[in-house]
Parts: sequence; structure tokens; C-alpha cells
Amino acid sequence: MRITTVGFDADDTLWHNESLFRLTQERFRALMAPVAAPEVLDAKLAEVERRNLALYGYGVKGFTLSMIETAMEVTGHHAPSPIVAEILAAGREMLAHPAELLPGVEAALADLAPDYRLVLITKGDLLHQEQKLAASGLGEVFAGVEIVSEKDAATYERVFARHGDGAARAAMAGNSLRSDVLPALEAGGYAAHIPYHLTWAHEMAEPPLGHPRFAELPSIADLPAWVRSLR
Amino acid sequence: MRITTVGFDADDTLWHNESLFRLTQERFRALMAPVAAPEVLDAKLAEVERRNLALYGYGVKGFTLSMIETAMEVTGHHAPSPIVAEILAAGREMLAHPAELLPGVEAALADLAPDYRLVLITKGDLLHQEQKLAASGLGEVFAGVEIVSEKDAATYERVFARHGDGAARAAMAGNSLRSDVLPALEAGGYAAHIPYHLTWAHEMAEPPLGHPRFAELPSIADLPAWVRSLR
Repeated sequence: MRITTVGFDADDTLWHNESLFRLTQERFRALMAPVAAPEVLDAKLAEVERRNLALYGYGVKGFTLSMIETAMEVTGHHAPSPIVAEILAAGREMLAHPAELLPGVEAALADLAPDYRLVLITKGDLLHQEQKLAASGLGEVFAGVEIVSEKDAATYERVFARHGDGAARAAMAGNSLRSDVLPALEAGGYAAHIPYHLTWAHEMAEPPLGHPRFAELPSIADLPAWVRSLR
Repeated sequence: MRITTVGFDADDTLWHNESLFRLTQERFRALMAPVAAPEVLDAKLAEVERRNLALYGYGVKGFTLSMIETAMEVTGHHAPSPIVAEILAAGREMLAHPAELLPGVEAALADLAPDYRLVLITKGDLLHQEQKLAASGLGEVFAGVEIVSEKDAATYERVFARHGDGAARAAMAGNSLRSDVLPALEAGGYAAHIPYHLTWAHEMAEPPLGHPRFAELPSIADLPAWVRSLR
């Protein structure tokens, strides 16, 4: 069999994530409405997040810090203090929120697990990702779990060498073209893009249409058949 | 040879860490001096950190969020906003601060590297620990690097099984009795306590004096001789 290992992204591939960020951002907009127009706030938050990414990395804690920083910046460092307490509470609620599985995830994993080594490969806060995986009940199905600070071609080479037979014998499935698809292809693997209905601006990229090892799948329910077709 | 693998804690074992937290906490005290007495502030910060540990885990981002929450709580949610901006800046400075190696670290690692598999085992923010390791210049000497959310006996069993010949043939070196020494002993390994001059209250524990696989070493310079004596 050509493919022995299947890698899965977690956030927005196995469970909802971006929708939770968007809900929190809506709450942030409502909180700040008396002092900042929504478009101004969104643009400033995007700028602050981008600026902080190299220091904070991905995840809820960095997002919470960036919301607070944004609140300070749009108010000339005079945001009403109760707003800061509300932002902190919103961040803690995101961290405590249970992982909600996307439709078809359990069936797709159960279908592939007997025949392939399944590996979870995700970015974000270490502890938070571990907690979401534990709460999801999916932990047992994965032969390996790798929580990484960045997903580039070197990441996929390393992870598929450690948990499988190298990237050339692996397929990666995820919702982000930028983080899941393009670097996995670059590493020499196969990659399926399974879009989520929302995409964080930072994760957007052009689909590699026509690439011989790439597939665009409407749902994770389509993944098992595609993986089995790779011979 | 009985011992084949040596595990190293990173923060306050290879490089300064707690001193940076203390300096930031002093800066926090000075910032808050007009609105809160230092003892009140310290007690509240310790309480907030303890309460948030299960959600935030270890590291600078969670510490920054806890300082902001403390500032809100001690002022009845009315901390002057410039203080929040100052706390955010202090957190970013901690993240950007280069790792400063402790004396004797490079020599001890160079001494052991030809004869043992060296593994770095550390808690904290994933990206931040990777960046400190990269900046330290020590990356090449380690056969494995494991950034974990918690250090318990199961952690050491897993890491020494993955990177070595099991905990029974491994020695762990670190400054924390609670995180580096006691769980490594519980896993069946050897453990050396190499104290740092400051210890975070959360990491304190009683030394396992008289334990046959435990050593208290005044400096990392004493580690190679101790490891070589384990036969």
C-alpha cells in the first residue's frame, strides 16, 4: 500500500474552532461599541494579532492578550477597566469550552483506523490542545499526537518520519491550505483540503489546483475513499 | 552501562528564568504601588495564578494574563488603563528576552554528550521554549526535545521510552524537586536536584533525602561525575 499514514489537523478539521473565535470577536465588538466602531476595531485587532504572532504563536492566550492590547490602542490607553475584565473572562471561556466535533469525524476516523496509522498534527497552545483532544474522546484513535508551533514542510517531514514511513507515504487532511495542504505537498506527501465554513485571514492561500497529489474534498466523510484511492 | 540517557530541565537549570519572572513582578509592584500595597498584590497574584493554572498552563502568556487579572481585582476592576498597557509590554519583553545560560551548562553538556543521549524536557509555552532553545545555541546537543504541559511520572516514562531505553536507564537533572526530581524517581529513574537561587512557590517540595537514586548537587558542573558514578 502506497499510503500508510494519515495526518489530521484538529481545529476546524475535527472540531469547531474559528466559529468560537468569531463569536468572541463579536462579543469584543459589542463590548467596545461605546468607544470604537466595529470596522476600526477589527482592523486594529488584525494588525495587533499579526504583529504579535512571532512572540505569542497561535492560540487563545495570545488572542486574549491581543484583544486587550487592541482595546488599549483604540482608546489611547484609556479603555474602561471593566472591559478588560470582560475580555479576560471571554478568553477563559474559550479555553474552558468543550471541543465540539464536526459532522462525520468519528465515522471517518473509525473507517481509516484499522488500515492506516492516524496522526494528529496541530498548532496552538500546548495545554489547550491536549485538553480539547482529551475532551473529544478521540485520543485513543491516534497513534501519534504532535502539537507544533508552526506547520511548514520541515514539520511534516519530521512528524511523518517519526510516526510513519515518511511524507511520501503519508496523506494530510485539514481545513487550511496554508498550514495543512501546501507544506504537506512541499514535503512530498499527499494533501486533502476539507474547507471549514470560516477561515482566519492568516490561513488563507490559493488552492494548488491541478497538483497531482492534491484533492479538494467537500467533507471529511469523503476522506476515506480518497485515501484508499491513493495506490 | 546502566544509564544511557540524561534528561535536562530547561528553565532555571540550563538558563535563567525565575529571576526574569521576579524582575517583572517587581516592575508590576512598582506600577501598582499607587493603588495596591505590595503584600496585597503578591498574595492576590499568587491566588490568581493558582486559579488559572489548569486553564493557562505554565509560561509567560498565562503569567501576563494573570497579572492583568490581578490588577483588575485589586482595584475593583478600575485599574488605570496605562497600567494594563505596561503589563502587556512587560510580558512581551519577557518573551523577547534572550535565554541567558547558567554557568557550567555548556561544559557539562559537552562532557556528557559523547557518552549519553541527552534529552531536553521542559514545561511552558511551546513557541517560547523553542525560541529560547534556538537562541541558546544548545539545540544540536540534544537527541530529543520534549515540551510538555505537565511533568509527572507518566511524562518521564513516555519521554524516556521514546528517546532512550526507559526511565530505569535514565537520569533526570533539574532545579524543581516537584517537577524534575520526584516524578522522575517515581517513574523508576535517577534524579539530581540542582537548585536555582530562586524557586517559584508552586514548584516547592520536600527533598527525598536518603532515596537511593537521588542526589543533591550544588552545581550542574557536578552532574557529569554523578552520572558516570551510576553503574
